[in-house]
Amino acid sequence: MSLNTFGHLFRVTTWGESHGPALGATVDGCPPGVDLAPEMLQQWLDRRKPGQNKFTTQRREPDEVEILSGVFEGKSTGTPIQLMIRNTDQRSKDYGDISEKFRPGHADITYWQKYGIRDYRGGGRSSARETAARVAAGGVAREALKSLVPGIEITGYMVQMGPHRIDRDRFDWDQIEQNPFWTPDAKAAEDWAAYLDGLRKSGSSVGAVIEVVARGVPAGLGAPVYGKLDTDLAAAMMSINAVKGVEIGAGMGAAELTGEANADEITMGPNGPEYSSNHAGGILGGISTGQDVVVRFAVKPTSSILTPRKTITKSGEDAEIITKGRHDPCVGIRAVPVGEAMMACVILDHLLLDRGQTGGIRGQIG
Amino acid sequence: MSLNTFGHLFRVTTWGESHGPALGATVDGCPPGVDLAPEMLQQWLDRRKPGQNKFTTQRREPDEVEILSGVFEGKSTGTPIQLMIRNTDQRSKDYGDISEKFRPGHADITYWQKYGIRDYRGGGRSSARETAARVAAGGVAREALKSLVPGIEITGYMVQMGPHRIDRDRFDWDQIEQNPFWTPDAKAAEDWAAYLDGLRKSGSSVGAVIEVVARGVPAGLGAPVYGKLDTDLAAAMMSINAVKGVEIGAGMGAAELTGEANADEITMGPNGPEYSSNHAGGILGGISTGQDVVVRFAVKPTSSILTPRKTITKSGEDAEIITKGRHDPCVGIRAVPVGEAMMACVILDHLLLDRGQTGGIRGQIG
Amino acid sequence: MSLNTFGHLFRVTTWGESHGPALGATVDGCPPGVDLAPEMLQQWLDRRKPGQNKFTTQRREPDEVEILSGVFEGKSTGTPIQLMIRNTDQRSKDYGDISEKFRPGHADITYWQKYGIRDYRGGGRSSARETAARVAAGGVAREALKSLVPGIEITGYMVQMGPHRIDRDRFDWDQIEQNPFWTPDAKAAEDWAAYLDGLRKSGSSVGAVIEVVARGVPAGLGAPVYGKLDTDLAAAMMSINAVKGVEIGAGMGAAELTGEANADEITMGPNGPEYSSNHAGGILGGISTGQDVVVRFAVKPTSSILTPRKTITKSGEDAEIITKGRHDPCVGIRAVPVGEAMMACVILDHLLLDRGQTGGIRGQIG
Amino acid sequence: MSLNTFGHLFRVTTWGESHGPALGATVDGCPPGVDLAPEMLQQWLDRRKPGQNKFTTQRREPDEVEILSGVFEGKSTGTPIQLMIRNTDQRSKDYGDISEKFRPGHADITYWQKYGIRDYRGGGRSSARETAARVAAGGVAREALKSLVPGIEITGYMVQMGPHRIDRDRFDWDQIEQNPFWTPDAKAAEDWAAYLDGLRKSGSSVGAVIEVVARGVPAGLGAPVYGKLDTDLAAAMMSINAVKGVEIGAGMGAAELTGEANADEITMGPNGPEYSSNHAGGILGGISTGQDVVVRFAVKPTSSILTPRKTITKSGEDAEIITKGRHDPCVGIRAVPVGEAMMACVILDHLLLDRGQTGGIRGQIG
Repeated sequence: MSLNTFGHLFRVTTWGESHGPALGATVDGCPPGVDLAPEMLQQWLDRRKPGQNKFTTQRREPDEVEILSGVFEGKSTGTPIQLMIRNTDQRSKDYGDISEKFRPGHADITYWQKYGIRDYRGGGRSSARETAARVAAGGVAREALKSLVPGIEITGYMVQMGPHRIDRDRFDWDQIEQNPFWTPDAKAAEDWAAYLDGLRKSGSSVGAVIEVVARGVPAGLGAPVYGKLDTDLAAAMMSINAVKGVEIGAGMGAAELTGEANADEITMGPNGPEYSSNHAGGILGGISTGQDVVVRFAVKPTSSILTPRKTITKSGEDAEIITKGRHDPCVGIRAVPVGEAMMACVILDHLLLDRGQTGGIRGQIG
Repeated sequence: MSLNTFGHLFRVTTWGESHGPALGATVDGCPPGVDLAPEMLQQWLDRRKPGQNKFTTQRREPDEVEILSGVFEGKSTGTPIQLMIRNTDQRSKDYGDISEKFRPGHADITYWQKYGIRDYRGGGRSSARETAARVAAGGVAREALKSLVPGIEITGYMVQMGPHRIDRDRFDWDQIEQNPFWTPDAKAAEDWAAYLDGLRKSGSSVGAVIEVVARGVPAGLGAPVYGKLDTDLAAAMMSINAVKGVEIGAGMGAAELTGEANADEITMGPNGPEYSSNHAGGILGGISTGQDVVVRFAVKPTSSILTPRKTITKSGEDAEIITKGRHDPCVGIRAVPVGEAMMACVILDHLLLDRGQTGGIRGQIG
Repeated sequence: MSLNTFGHLFRVTTWGESHGPALGATVDGCPPGVDLAPEMLQQWLDRRKPGQNKFTTQRREPDEVEILSGVFEGKSTGTPIQLMIRNTDQRSKDYGDISEKFRPGHADITYWQKYGIRDYRGGGRSSARETAARVAAGGVAREALKSLVPGIEITGYMVQMGPHRIDRDRFDWDQIEQNPFWTPDAKAAEDWAAYLDGLRKSGSSVGAVIEVVARGVPAGLGAPVYGKLDTDLAAAMMSINAVKGVEIGAGMGAAELTGEANADEITMGPNGPEYSSNHAGGILGGISTGQDVVVRFAVKPTSSILTPRKTITKSGEDAEIITKGRHDPCVGIRAVPVGEAMMACVILDHLLLDRGQTGGIRGQIG
Repeated sequence: MSLNTFGHLFRVTTWGESHGPALGATVDGCPPGVDLAPEMLQQWLDRRKPGQNKFTTQRREPDEVEILSGVFEGKSTGTPIQLMIRNTDQRSKDYGDISEKFRPGHADITYWQKYGIRDYRGGGRSSARETAARVAAGGVAREALKSLVPGIEITGYMVQMGPHRIDRDRFDWDQIEQNPFWTPDAKAAEDWAAYLDGLRKSGSSVGAVIEVVARGVPAGLGAPVYGKLDTDLAAAMMSINAVKGVEIGAGMGAAELTGEANADEITMGPNGPEYSSNHAGGILGGISTGQDVVVRFAVKPTSSILTPRKTITKSGEDAEIITKGRHDPCVGIRAVPVGEAMMACVILDHLLLDRGQTGGIRGQIG
């Protein structure tokens, strides 16, 4: 995992800026023989695509993915898969203000301080547009997983918007696709709609918490002590723009538990070990248990808001800045498919790693 | 970062089990000419060492570190530094129960499922004893940082034990060294002592939240988009035993904020940019801002408790297990120096990475 | 260095097949602020381009490179640089024979055995066309080197074609650009022209030896013991299609030398150490001495020849194969700019690595 | 592969200097369940051990290997294996001369130039003693290979000493263990004994060429285009001290061949493809063919000789140096087990890599 590359064996390198000619992902290490066609990837990109409802940015990016290499006659060849998404909706507007001032809460100032140069148009490399490439790569990972672990399912959804959390008692998997927030709580979806509409109209923004669950992950993925499954999941989620916290299973809440409460008790079921609870989030000692792998991450609110904020210019003068434009009042919404994509990449990577080291042969129980 | 190695240029590989002859860390990529002697590392190990007060395990491990290579006439040579800590207090007790049963909340079952073999003595590789090697490696990182960034300070402390949080209004840096919990809140220290004593006597355990702050980190460390400073910090902390959540700056709480509240406003100060707040935790777009770098992580309670828990045996039979022995009622305490060590390693690694790519030359402001 | 990626800090991942829509290189870790424009890269691609004279394949590929990311207002930004070369001259011919039979001396059979699928059109991923992407990436490395080490020069040339070697007494740097073989020996160029013309007309092919020299490389690049400069150079050159041997300095000939003959004696010159000879090829203990870095590699003859060769089909039947088409009688010619590109990438990578670890500060002599 | 680490999934990091307390190898990624005991590794170390006959250095190092971690009840656990070899025969002699002067042909000067500090005692990190750690790690790889690919055999032998080559017509596998040079040509062994004795008595030294063959390697190991099997073998061999050239199959001689001569023709045999010859050295397109994998490397003569050589001091003064001591007249001899060890590590690594990506399922022929 170095700079713009993620993964050990299934390696994804994303490239591109929001206002250059294109962006994409170079995917190396995909198993051969996986069915792959652009439309298999496009379905996931369409979920992340802006402009789908009033709660996401009104930019119109078709985000159409092209496969430039690594696929032959509809199947992966085992060589690098180049995925390219052309940038089309680049309004030729005046970037003067942003080019000279640093937006608070944005990467403007740190890119400048590090590199002494930055592509300020639309955030350049730091734009959330980069995540389109991750979603495309995640689509490849999903297809590979499908062929290797039939029945595996990776699903993301929103569990908190601003201060409003879902009610776990109303959790309904079928609701997730029924509302613009991908939330499993239908009542929350209604409440959030009104809440976010208010924020949107006032030019404000708010954060969110996304949960991603992988069901059907075999036991035995991960490794001590830096190649842990949870280490890589934490890295994967934290690498998404605007993410400030990552939790596995009980997460930060684990601090409040006693040993008695935290222990997920084990009994023998017809198909192997069964657990009384899942505080571990499906991972013990960095290795999957066979339970659902559960990750949550918090997305901060967009820093692009209409209320003026204090900042400074490149020449070191105090100033104020308002970020107009077509921004997401809750970028967390579009982070859902991104989180799913990162989960898919990590699980596949560890599946390959495990197969490499152990051959996938497991210690028997019973 | 692969399996047992952490870092890009400053690379730490830890090795060893709790009940083998020794454990240690192979540190590669240390800058040459850094002052290094065993006692510089020992001071940090002594903080992590068990048996220092009644709130940590009563095992007696001297945890003495030896430098086997990479240091010549008191200075690092730029070649690999081998740090070895011999295991001495290995009670020759009967491990029969643990060898056949899997402790709930423990890596016993997943190691078995993955590898088909496990060193069950004291947790083997999954033992928290492994973190001694990290602390030793962190000591090397601290010395290197000292020579590269004079004035840098890395400090960890406990901010929550079980459900009890510190009061930030009572935060006092000087208190940290004054109590067995390394907490900056003297009042909390008192309360926790009573609370933990009760848990200890009942053979129970509880979780905690640790915060680690790096002060004096220059702006410009980190890189898009997977080599982010926060990505590596999240990975570093999540890789520590028993950690279930990681936060940068506002962390999970960022989800509750509006864009207005979250924006750390910027003004020009005498020595460069100044910020009105630090929700970002010193990192924007994956790159350090020059503010304090602030990381928090949650440590779950030890699963080794006296209350019997349901489990299964290797042969697949239902059973109960009690974990006797000399365990920490709150392993979070001893995680403080470990978190500091990981912070030191990550900051140094990114300092070297940044120097490699950019030469450390910064975009000027003003 | 894993699968399709080369380098530690300056990392090049090439992608693409000879008959897909495009191929290219994803270049990560380039220093920021380096002047970069397509024409700076194109000049090197034009040297490798087929169809320039009768001694190279008559395919007509414009090999025009596009920069899709990582460059803003004519300078590198420090983020990934995507270089794309579209494939244009893909004759829609019948590949039936090659799709069913394995060409001896070619990757056809091993790709099939490993992946169970292969893009047989023009060799797919194993085509020498992949080296165009390396040359483009090498162009980036050259520009970065220019800004970091003024005066550095990287030059490749042919020193042997088939059994015919150059006469080192006739070595003339100025001749290299004057003949189609990039050889410094004008007399050899004449002889080889006649020799190769004969081979070409008979549909045969022959091997060659290329030497690449980097002049002006500072002392101190490289590292023990697997990150050696010569280790990475050997890997870089051996990774080029058709290369079967790599030598540093005296190379395989070092075996014949006595210790007395091999020792490059050192004297003190006005600008530092001077050497009586350069059997070491500018590298001692894996680290550059400041002398010319000298690498040689042998390129085997194209296996695509007109003489029928015995082979088998996918269904396991014995067969014969003739490879018609527009092949190079001596692919070694076009390997010259490829070797230069790899040298440029390795030197830059080690320059960044060294700056990362040591800050580029050197032990003083005198 | 970075600095002191070698390998992708089976990763070996060596550490230690010739005159420190110990040296060793940290082996990460070994498959679990491999039979391992010190004596399995010791047998290979004993082959490399100095002082076995008059043709190797008369230092007496027992080179006893200890396994400090990663093995439980005689089997690898899948966690890091720490191999340690204590340094015992460190004569407390005066190193004054070497500490101030740089030996020509030695790493003395470059270590100094790079790091500004060097452990001059016995060459420190650049000592050939480092290769003991490789041999130990190679022993682990051999045991793992044995369990994964029954029948695989890795054998190294000397094919050239100074200007004297073996006669391939006299090649006899059984001779290799019968002479101090591990050469398959009994007549050469006799001649070389006399030749080397002369060199030894005169305090001189000479180079050699070692060939290492892996028999029984399955087809399909390796990967395009930087993860090639030959790329990694070239890197592995070039990383050995004093190696200046590496060849695969026909090697540098491939340059002299025509396409007709070079093509290894294929016919269908009872157990799959058969080849008329092996110019490819068992590797096509970077992937193994199932033929013998054949690598050769040239070892330069020891630079430690009795004839005075010109050099300079740290203070920049011209000087002469004689290297007394107990040095090998032909270090190539002891490089034989080292080359075998590197071959074992590379083959195992690629076996795991291949199993990870493809699951080891092969394209069928016939």
